[in-house]
Amino acid sequence: VTGYLPDEITAEERARQQQLYGPFAQAVRELVDAAIRTTVDEDEIRRAQTEVEQIVARLRKSQMNGSFGTRINPVDGTARAWGNAVVGLRNAVAPPLHIVREEGGDGGRVHCEFHLGAAYEGPPTLVHGGVSALILDQMLGEAASAGGKPGMTGTLTLRYRQGTPLGDLRAEAWIDRVEGIKTWAKGHIIGPSGITVEAEGVFILPRWAREAMAEHPELPRVTSFE
Amino acid sequence: VTGYLPDEITAEERARQQQLYGPFAQAVRELVDAAIRTTVDEDEIRRAQTEVEQIVARLRKSQMNGSFGTRINPVDGTARAWGNAVVGLRNAVAPPLHIVREEGGDGGRVHCEFHLGAAYEGPPTLVHGGVSALILDQMLGEAASAGGKPGMTGTLTLRYRQGTPLGDLRAEAWIDRVEGIKTWAKGHIIGPSGITVEAEGVFILPRWAREAMAEHPELPRVTSFE
Repeated sequence: VTGYLPDEITAEERARQQQLYGPFAQAVRELVDAAIRTTVDEDEIRRAQTEVEQIVARLRKSQMNGSFGTRINPVDGTARAWGNAVVGLRNAVAPPLHIVREEGGDGGRVHCEFHLGAAYEGPPTLVHGGVSALILDQMLGEAASAGGKPGMTGTLTLRYRQGTPLGDLRAEAWIDRVEGIKTWAKGHIIGPSGITVEAEGVFILPRWAREAMAEHPELPRVTSFE
Repeated sequence: VTGYLPDEITAEERARQQQLYGPFAQAVRELVDAAIRTTVDEDEIRRAQTEVEQIVARLRKSQMNGSFGTRINPVDGTARAWGNAVVGLRNAVAPPLHIVREEGGDGGRVHCEFHLGAAYEGPPTLVHGGVSALILDQMLGEAASAGGKPGMTGTLTLRYRQGTPLGDLRAEAWIDRVEGIKTWAKGHIIGPSGITVEAEGVFILPRWAREAMAEHPELPRVTSFE
């Protein structure tokens, strides 16, 4: 059920792969943006389509079955979720967010500076309300994880205060309170005119994770559910 | 503020553009998926990156400023939101959803069959909780629109009942009740093991839209806030 895979690569190999796949995914993100905004003529679109299909065919000659999953290094507990829809290094759907865990205090506080372009539009010139939800779900989950209370989303409530303009944005999230296996987290997105969307959610450590941790105390703790 | 643009194209031109841009965006979606899953060697990745960058440079020789926006045809009231993050024909971030408005009854009921692949992952093999929120935000907004009560999201609450597996899924949404400018909508996502996520939201007709409708009764009604 869990699908979490052990990750045997060294730190050097991990860095090498980041240098390889990160820039490639960034090029694909640019293509996603250009495909929405281009006004070149029909022949150029058709030519681009044919070339993209050829690239895809070459890439698919060897590929993993299914999705990337989350690979946890049994030595240092670091996780690779490079296919994740919000933070995935290899995923062009992800902006991607680079979420910063804040030091000091009681833990469980994160922030993130990010940019959302044309691909994240809902109402004209504004971020899609569901994209704000997508980002805040990840942020609140990361806050719970950062506070040592990782979990999967149980409930999530969003309040939209004003439109969020496409462009440079900031998000913040923190743990509000903890009761047993449940952690309440809060957060918001900040635009040029202040807070645009507020979120509150409950994150719950799944039974399978609790059982795995009880049965295998020698394994590194699961630090997030990316 | 509104950013809604008039759309002067004929039905024939609209169909022609759908045939041109739809398959191109689909090729880009395949590339997004392949970029996550490929296991070809390093040289092949670098070659693909160079080629994608060249395609982007050609597409960007002529492009619109900013995002696609929403273009409303003043004759028939149809809207093109081809950059929309959930339903956008030209947007490779969007699955895209093809949301069906159900006939009969009191209106305000929609459904959708869709497929989510590797690019929408959160926990291993499961749909990202925020992606479910993204989809349900759009679905509930469409239900409000389908019932003649379009609005922008005011609040949205999600309850995660079980993990949503990547693959073929269905979503349903409907209007629960209406009070003046506020419309409450509900919906859910259904996976192979039943309902996975439930949502409830309030959709509010913005003041600028009410004012525009009062000042220009001759214009077609805004039918959605895609």
